[in-house]
Amino acid sequence: MLAANNPDLHSWIDISPLSDFPIQNLPFGVFETPERGTRAGVAIGDYVLDLYAVSQYGFFDDLDITNQPKVFRRRSLNSFIRLGRPTWRAVRQRVSELLRHDNPALRDNEEAMHTCLVRQSEVQMLRPVRPGNYTDFYSSIEHATNVGMMFRDPANALLPNWRHIPIGYHGRASSIVVSGTDIRRPNGQRKAPDAAAPTFGPSQQLDFELEVAFIGGRATQLGHAVPIQQAEDYIFGLVLFNDWSARDIQSWEYVPLGPFLGKSFGSSVSPWIVTLDALEPFRVPGPEQEPEPLLYLRQTGAANFDINLEVAIEPAGGSETVISRSNFKYMYWSMAQQLAHQTSNGCNLQVGDLYASGTISGSTPDSLGSMLELTWRGTRPLPLADGSERKFLLDGDTVTMRGFAEKDGIRIGFGEVSGTILPANQ
Amino acid sequence: MLAANNPDLHSWIDISPLSDFPIQNLPFGVFETPERGTRAGVAIGDYVLDLYAVSQYGFFDDLDITNQPKVFRRRSLNSFIRLGRPTWRAVRQRVSELLRHDNPALRDNEEAMHTCLVRQSEVQMLRPVRPGNYTDFYSSIEHATNVGMMFRDPANALLPNWRHIPIGYHGRASSIVVSGTDIRRPNGQRKAPDAAAPTFGPSQQLDFELEVAFIGGRATQLGHAVPIQQAEDYIFGLVLFNDWSARDIQSWEYVPLGPFLGKSFGSSVSPWIVTLDALEPFRVPGPEQEPEPLLYLRQTGAANFDINLEVAIEPAGGSETVISRSNFKYMYWSMAQQLAHQTSNGCNLQVGDLYASGTISGSTPDSLGSMLELTWRGTRPLPLADGSERKFLLDGDTVTMRGFAEKDGIRIGFGEVSGTILPANQ
Repeated sequence: MLAANNPDLHSWIDISPLSDFPIQNLPFGVFETPERGTRAGVAIGDYVLDLYAVSQYGFFDDLDITNQPKVFRRRSLNSFIRLGRPTWRAVRQRVSELLRHDNPALRDNEEAMHTCLVRQSEVQMLRPVRPGNYTDFYSSIEHATNVGMMFRDPANALLPNWRHIPIGYHGRASSIVVSGTDIRRPNGQRKAPDAAAPTFGPSQQLDFELEVAFIGGRATQLGHAVPIQQAEDYIFGLVLFNDWSARDIQSWEYVPLGPFLGKSFGSSVSPWIVTLDALEPFRVPGPEQEPEPLLYLRQTGAANFDINLEVAIEPAGGSETVISRSNFKYMYWSMAQQLAHQTSNGCNLQVGDLYASGTISGSTPDSLGSMLELTWRGTRPLPLADGSERKFLLDGDTVTMRGFAEKDGIRIGFGEVSGTILPANQ
Repeated sequence: MLAANNPDLHSWIDISPLSDFPIQNLPFGVFETPERGTRAGVAIGDYVLDLYAVSQYGFFDDLDITNQPKVFRRRSLNSFIRLGRPTWRAVRQRVSELLRHDNPALRDNEEAMHTCLVRQSEVQMLRPVRPGNYTDFYSSIEHATNVGMMFRDPANALLPNWRHIPIGYHGRASSIVVSGTDIRRPNGQRKAPDAAAPTFGPSQQLDFELEVAFIGGRATQLGHAVPIQQAEDYIFGLVLFNDWSARDIQSWEYVPLGPFLGKSFGSSVSPWIVTLDALEPFRVPGPEQEPEPLLYLRQTGAANFDINLEVAIEPAGGSETVISRSNFKYMYWSMAQQLAHQTSNGCNLQVGDLYASGTISGSTPDSLGSMLELTWRGTRPLPLADGSERKFLLDGDTVTMRGFAEKDGIRIGFGEVSGTILPANQ
């Protein structure tokens, strides 16, 4: 195992202390350049380590992937992930060794070094996995309570099932895009409560949702329930996730079968998948669960992760305003509980599946994870640095989410997930 | 175009008048034998025509797929479907020509004939597509009304949005299996209305849902809405679909985000995809829609299809009882309306996607498409031929759904979708 929080571990690559990608992190992603085509890579400081190039130089020859270099030339990490956890760990361990300050193997081989390292500014990042299935959970008690207060009954905001079940729904996998992809404002049916009939047109309540998602690392057979104690073995790593939402479309359509077109026009993921191994030092206990969950959801030990999250809006031609600061540790239901619940009925997992947390809101007004909550459904407009204000998102707005864990001088960052709103089609 | 209802068209293969697969049908599927491996095929009478073998004999040489014989050796039809509608149609047209009574090309080439035709009884049918995305609609007004009466308010059974929106939700794609696959009774949380807390265990209200699904034939870019007039061009064909449902799990979990584990333990499809071309003669007008749908859902012409459907239960070791006879023509919202709605927000389509109708119930007590409705939530047990009765499904029960269209002596059948309930895991 890599000692992720070992501050003595450092690389021969010059890395800023503010970088999201020190040698303790080493997240996986997929990138493209005109010369190289599509490659799997690992982020290190301002660089990407090209895993295909590394394999071609023989640095992985003693690992059990030597017959499968193609997994590093695919448009997604699915094939690589399918090789299994021992392999991901062996590759990450080898990358860590190659990048250590005292290892000359790559450092002193100028040709290999220049072939294996590319500046991040020179690559195009791709969606890191091809998600076969996508579930969106609803695991922040603060968010569920806020939404319940606004849309249902303020006195009974949390529904009776919420403290028993990690509530979730199936989302649309096809429209998951990588950070940097523009988001087209959706058209759809909306109906004001006092209107006689619905109308069709551009959403007037376009929103983001600040989420973290985990990527499935291991498939199961139909009928197999993953015991909660083993659930984390099925997780490859984590990304930031923006579950764009059209509140007016959603509130008209969602009864009784849940969100549909209010969500499926697009969801954005950050390009780098941060491994659970890198996040291990940031494990913290989750909130106390009352009542105690049923046995299949009962977990011991620290199940949450202390990851700082923020959301910023930048209007077209304007400057950025950070509008929310939250933390992944606030989640009421843990990832392990989500995964155990997902499979408790025998539902099968596939490699590359994406399981999103649901909006991560804290308990303070500046830690809310959606415009819906920050502006209380548009009733309290949010001031931005340029003097404008927002009830919901406007065309041209760029929403950027960032996340990092930090402790003992080590920062494990996620980079960002960002998207700009384009006007609706006519 | 094939004259699908041309009764003068007949094959040199001897086909029973009761067969689902006359030469007018020619549905596509994927099969496997120990000798051949995995192959794409077309059903004809009691046989499967092996499309890979046909291509190896050069019968497709003048079509534009000669460089891609591999599409007929894959584990799904996705690659074949991706070649586009003109290609599916050209292949089906060529198959029709080869099988015509007056064409000696295959008929009189004994070696080729024996290589290209396999008895259906000797093959294993596979899931015909790898569905990237699965939507389940809720398009039968009788079903939605019945469910609303049982679970919500009998006086206002139909929710306000129902007549404006083809309501649907994203389903789980990973657990879609082919007919003949056993279905494991799911475990899950259930809570009786008068219970203080939920418990976890085997579902006590296991149900089927009689549905028809269409398979996506053409991908779209994110942001592109398919106009309703073009919607059918995006459909490859239709299958029977059993949306197995655990009513006790579903009713406890579904508020506010919709069905989740009450559905995702398994859904079954019939192996043969019947093309819209084969079904063209069975087009009929749908029910009158009141109020008139919004412009993007407004359709002219006959948008429904007259397809007889039935459901039968066979207890372990017992005989079969047909418990429901319904018809696909009852659908309030048409497939074209569903597809136009799905893409109206810019949600992208992928080839092989599966779009299910929702339970197809008629207006009479013997035409209801689920046990929930047939037994009115278990309050009116259903008698079976063997003297037993059912509130919901028991372990060992086999549920079989069949479908066919018939007119002018031509029967276009779907075969069947069948599944047997296994006891829950301990």
